[in-house]
Amino acid sequence: MNTSIRPSGRAPEELRKVTLERAVARYAEGSCLVKFGETHVLCTASLEDRPPPWLRGQGRGWVTAEYAMLPRATLERTRREVTSGKPSGRTQEIQRLIGRSLRAVVDLHAIGERQIVVDCDVLQADGGTRTAAITGAWVALHDCLQWMQARSMLSAKALKDHVAAVSCGIYRGTPVLDLDYAEDSAAETDANFVLTGTGGIVEVQGTAEGAPFSEEELLRLLALARAGTEKLVTLQKLAVS
Amino acid sequence: MNTSIRPSGRAPEELRKVTLERAVARYAEGSCLVKFGETHVLCTASLEDRPPPWLRGQGRGWVTAEYAMLPRATLERTRREVTSGKPSGRTQEIQRLIGRSLRAVVDLHAIGERQIVVDCDVLQADGGTRTAAITGAWVALHDCLQWMQARSMLSAKALKDHVAAVSCGIYRGTPVLDLDYAEDSAAETDANFVLTGTGGIVEVQGTAEGAPFSEEELLRLLALARAGTEKLVTLQKLAVS
Amino acid sequence: MNTSIRPSGRAPEELRKVTLERAVARYAEGSCLVKFGETHVLCTASLEDRPPPWLRGQGRGWVTAEYAMLPRATLERTRREVTSGKPSGRTQEIQRLIGRSLRAVVDLHAIGERQIVVDCDVLQADGGTRTAAITGAWVALHDCLQWMQARSMLSAKALKDHVAAVSCGIYRGTPVLDLDYAEDSAAETDANFVLTGTGGIVEVQGTAEGAPFSEEELLRLLALARAGTEKLVTLQKLAVS
Amino acid sequence: MNTSIRPSGRAPEELRKVTLERAVARYAEGSCLVKFGETHVLCTASLEDRPPPWLRGQGRGWVTAEYAMLPRATLERTRREVTSGKPSGRTQEIQRLIGRSLRAVVDLHAIGERQIVVDCDVLQADGGTRTAAITGAWVALHDCLQWMQARSMLSAKALKDHVAAVSCGIYRGTPVLDLDYAEDSAAETDANFVLTGTGGIVEVQGTAEGAPFSEEELLRLLALARAGTEKLVTLQKLAVS
Amino acid sequence: MNTSIRPSGRAPEELRKVTLERAVARYAEGSCLVKFGETHVLCTASLEDRPPPWLRGQGRGWVTAEYAMLPRATLERTRREVTSGKPSGRTQEIQRLIGRSLRAVVDLHAIGERQIVVDCDVLQADGGTRTAAITGAWVALHDCLQWMQARSMLSAKALKDHVAAVSCGIYRGTPVLDLDYAEDSAAETDANFVLTGTGGIVEVQGTAEGAPFSEEELLRLLALARAGTEKLVTLQKLAVS
Amino acid sequence: MNTSIRPSGRAPEELRKVTLERAVARYAEGSCLVKFGETHVLCTASLEDRPPPWLRGQGRGWVTAEYAMLPRATLERTRREVTSGKPSGRTQEIQRLIGRSLRAVVDLHAIGERQIVVDCDVLQADGGTRTAAITGAWVALHDCLQWMQARSMLSAKALKDHVAAVSCGIYRGTPVLDLDYAEDSAAETDANFVLTGTGGIVEVQGTAEGAPFSEEELLRLLALARAGTEKLVTLQKLAVS
Repeated sequence: MNTSIRPSGRAPEELRKVTLERAVARYAEGSCLVKFGETHVLCTASLEDRPPPWLRGQGRGWVTAEYAMLPRATLERTRREVTSGKPSGRTQEIQRLIGRSLRAVVDLHAIGERQIVVDCDVLQADGGTRTAAITGAWVALHDCLQWMQARSMLSAKALKDHVAAVSCGIYRGTPVLDLDYAEDSAAETDANFVLTGTGGIVEVQGTAEGAPFSEEELLRLLALARAGTEKLVTLQKLAVS
Repeated sequence: MNTSIRPSGRAPEELRKVTLERAVARYAEGSCLVKFGETHVLCTASLEDRPPPWLRGQGRGWVTAEYAMLPRATLERTRREVTSGKPSGRTQEIQRLIGRSLRAVVDLHAIGERQIVVDCDVLQADGGTRTAAITGAWVALHDCLQWMQARSMLSAKALKDHVAAVSCGIYRGTPVLDLDYAEDSAAETDANFVLTGTGGIVEVQGTAEGAPFSEEELLRLLALARAGTEKLVTLQKLAVS
Repeated sequence: MNTSIRPSGRAPEELRKVTLERAVARYAEGSCLVKFGETHVLCTASLEDRPPPWLRGQGRGWVTAEYAMLPRATLERTRREVTSGKPSGRTQEIQRLIGRSLRAVVDLHAIGERQIVVDCDVLQADGGTRTAAITGAWVALHDCLQWMQARSMLSAKALKDHVAAVSCGIYRGTPVLDLDYAEDSAAETDANFVLTGTGGIVEVQGTAEGAPFSEEELLRLLALARAGTEKLVTLQKLAVS
Repeated sequence: MNTSIRPSGRAPEELRKVTLERAVARYAEGSCLVKFGETHVLCTASLEDRPPPWLRGQGRGWVTAEYAMLPRATLERTRREVTSGKPSGRTQEIQRLIGRSLRAVVDLHAIGERQIVVDCDVLQADGGTRTAAITGAWVALHDCLQWMQARSMLSAKALKDHVAAVSCGIYRGTPVLDLDYAEDSAAETDANFVLTGTGGIVEVQGTAEGAPFSEEELLRLLALARAGTEKLVTLQKLAVS
Repeated sequence: MNTSIRPSGRAPEELRKVTLERAVARYAEGSCLVKFGETHVLCTASLEDRPPPWLRGQGRGWVTAEYAMLPRATLERTRREVTSGKPSGRTQEIQRLIGRSLRAVVDLHAIGERQIVVDCDVLQADGGTRTAAITGAWVALHDCLQWMQARSMLSAKALKDHVAAVSCGIYRGTPVLDLDYAEDSAAETDANFVLTGTGGIVEVQGTAEGAPFSEEELLRLLALARAGTEKLVTLQKLAVS
Repeated sequence: MNTSIRPSGRAPEELRKVTLERAVARYAEGSCLVKFGETHVLCTASLEDRPPPWLRGQGRGWVTAEYAMLPRATLERTRREVTSGKPSGRTQEIQRLIGRSLRAVVDLHAIGERQIVVDCDVLQADGGTRTAAITGAWVALHDCLQWMQARSMLSAKALKDHVAAVSCGIYRGTPVLDLDYAEDSAAETDANFVLTGTGGIVEVQGTAEGAPFSEEELLRLLALARAGTEKLVTLQKLAVS
């Protein structure tokens, strides 16, 4: 008998089924199709031989990310952002988050005056697209750096650690891990955590959707996230081994 | 021994390996992942309950298409069109072509005052993305119409025929079928043909990239295309049966 | 007694009255006001002393075209494209076609690292604006190249051939040449042909507006177009002589 | 012997040759090709059956203007404004001026809940395009109102007066009328005057390009403008009679 | 003797001098000029009599925020965002945060089908503009709701609690409160906290700029923020009393 | 007893209370908060070390201006221009006017290859924002040039004269000085005058809102403006002394 309070039937601390499939894009220097249940994101890492203009001549490189959703990744078709002429605020917020998360584990001097662009394109969305994107983007980035390593393009070890992300939330009063869309839309509190392989916090973003939350709740969500990202890091290790 | 003049080793009249995988998108009313060799296009058909504004109150519906490429579908990363604020001329030309091709085989009165948007997103590009898109879009559209049929939303049979497309070109002096990127960039003449299941021509677009071509050459390309689209229609029939 | 099936009373293979008036713009290096009946297009060729950025340092030049309509060129006033912030898909398709057609008859090495921009502005539209534009643009381009020749700016003969264009269509079941607006809106099939002075095909664009068309029909339209462009080339020769 | 200080050889108080050709656009309700010497502007008046949204339900109409230049109207080719996505500040300033000038002589209640858009497209520019545009736009507007009158669409006499415009300037210390481009670029002071047929001032715009000017100079320019617009109004009367 | 490690000489747990000046804008329903030291933000609350389109007919209202900086609010002049045609990602992120923070303490049903827009315009920036904006926006919102209350426009008490925000960071290894620009640019970790008057957490945003941070550090920052926002709430109470 | 015809109770030739507060912006090289009654404009002058691209290498600099209004500077909230993607025609007209007015009194060679951008941001609007902006911008510009002088960046005296501006209008048949919003919206004629300290005219812009005006009326408005700008120049002298 399913006694779970979650629509998905999962236990509160249970991730969705996560898969990380490498080398899915023929041309990219690194790529990963990441699935968190029904959320599917295609991540490709592209090496560009010049850093962004504002960084030129400083002897180091840059890692950035772009994020988008296919129009019918969602339950209802979403209008393409090109049609309105600019990325939405949500899109920009997410791609800035992914970029910061990746840069937290990369030695930008080691990659020299180059740029790596990680594109995260959501093929199907069922909640948690940004956390899936970060988790998969790490794999694509890893493979891109390995590609560079094989061509002696790195002046030092460039990848300092793993980075993975997961959402948590308070759903019907219970802290739960890795919200899917049904949970996300009904959660009282929603938080995204980005952690490294060694357990350091790279980013915390917690938002009260309804009533404010307490310090104790924040800590319970963080504990869930810590356990979740540990599992994600294990899967990353398996994927790239 | 491979005596083909084609980089791919194919015979002049040989299609790439074509697959049409249905129902690949969880939410769309119809969907198809079409592959022409290394060219992969995800087609989703989305039903909207209103026609475009200029068609309201006329008792019929509309079928339209949008087309885009993921940034790293290509050998070199391509800048997202949202970044420049508008779809390129090439993108607009292609999505207009796909839309016209699909409308040629649909009874717009039968679908009532509704719109079907077929999104064709290129996951990987190796030449012939527009012809693959048309061929796969037909499957997505077929399934969307079947979905509508099952809900008694069609006033009559809406799908009048198959439609499929293929490119041809004169490569090193020889007319060849279904150009991949290596052939496409070197071809003297490039032509796209859109044909119906009964062999009618919906669209012919032939362009001399180098020297002008002759009527005879146009006819040889058309003959190749006719044979090619016949095979594609057979594959469509298998896919939806 | 007028027994023509055409609203204009023309015979099926009859062009509208075509005039090509040279040197109509005071400042342009070449210019031509072309009239196909009530369709009037002002074509100016402007020499720029640098090629487009992507072509720099390759020892050759470029010919490109831009196309626009005055707001009241049409029966109903059309909104200026600047108001919506970008050229429409139709505009971009047409200007790409004009550019390709002109480049087919120009030796881009002979003009050196420069660019010629041919602007085609429709003063009045009654169908066939793109074909009139190509036909007139050739004259403007010819005069611009002559202007360059007179200043020893060409390293070789730059203009390899004439190029002219005409539309054809199947109107009430009959293939007819050079459709005006009334015919164009009612035609079952609409095709534009761009041919050189020596009869080579530069571009074929045929579209079934209603029922698909057959190979035989395509050939009948091509035959009409061939006769029509021959007359247009004769008029070009007279204009520049 | 030409003792004029003006590059054109004109006397200080001499207009360029002005012509006003009516009914030059096949579809517009009113049209006029106005030439002030080598400055040529095509003005078309288009009747729209609804006023702008902010005026609906108020029982009166609106007259507005749009202004643009063809790319090669000028000595050097000018980039199309659609390419940069918006009309320039100069363009907007001019079209607002033309609109205000026309509205000054129209009874907006008499035209009912409709809008007349007067498009002023500069085919060739040699200074004074905005003043030529206003002068020609009046003729196009007159004919549009006459067209409406003939269809009993006016509730009263709608056109209250003539309106015409001319530029003046201080060129090499001498006040001169109707500056062409060579004079305009070198003038110390540049002023545009819009006057009615009865001599009322609708708009004065005087700008010191170099040293500030005095009240006396302003009055001398106004006197020149008054004489100039009287001649322009006479030409308008001839044109529409 | 100043033994502080902070450039400003403040103690780690010391806010800058904060002032909240009400009723500074003549026309707005509520307004507040908030200063956190040299960071000055003008907040105005504007009542609109309709909710955003997507909320119509649902019997409740909306509170949203917009954020911008004057060009010379910053050390170097910043380009106006209107010049690039769209708000930057940073701007959108901040205005979404302000809006969410305010909505957390408002009963949207009580304000009926209306919208309150709180504009936060940074007149001068020295770090912490978003937290100053939230703190001042609450005052402007309070006064707007009072204005509505005085006109019997509220169906119930609309303002449920105070909300205030402050930044914290780890600067040279020490957790400090309310970072100014000099500290912000050098901080290893940067976190913004939005808390209610009753101590509930509305939003936590913590980012590792350099090395990842630990749970313990997060808690120390939260403790600082809690003390800081308590003081800010006290100042809000004084301001509106 | 107030016998004034003006809503404000002022005499026809009476300015509103004008204040010019210097050095109000911490970072700008020059700044001024100008108030014409309830119209408040913050002017900052920013020195940039390069001229605009089109002026490079010509040995002289440039002075330009930008103008904007805060959303709730006005009675009803005005939409931010960034939301529509471009400055309105009115905004562009005003910023061009301010720039021209300032350049009329600056020796552009003396400032060398640099640019001064004067930002005029309207904090509160009650009519006459452009004239207040010009008057205050002069003070900001003065202080910026003094800042440059103190750093030996000027090759000669750069500021040649004062410049100040004021609006006049015919209100209920009477010429009045310095219109506030209530007067401006009802005035029959509206004119803006920009004059130098020595009484030279830099710019005259007079517009008949209703009936055309006469030469005599223009002169009476100019006389009012002359007296008004003399007082404004006196205030500028006091401000910078």
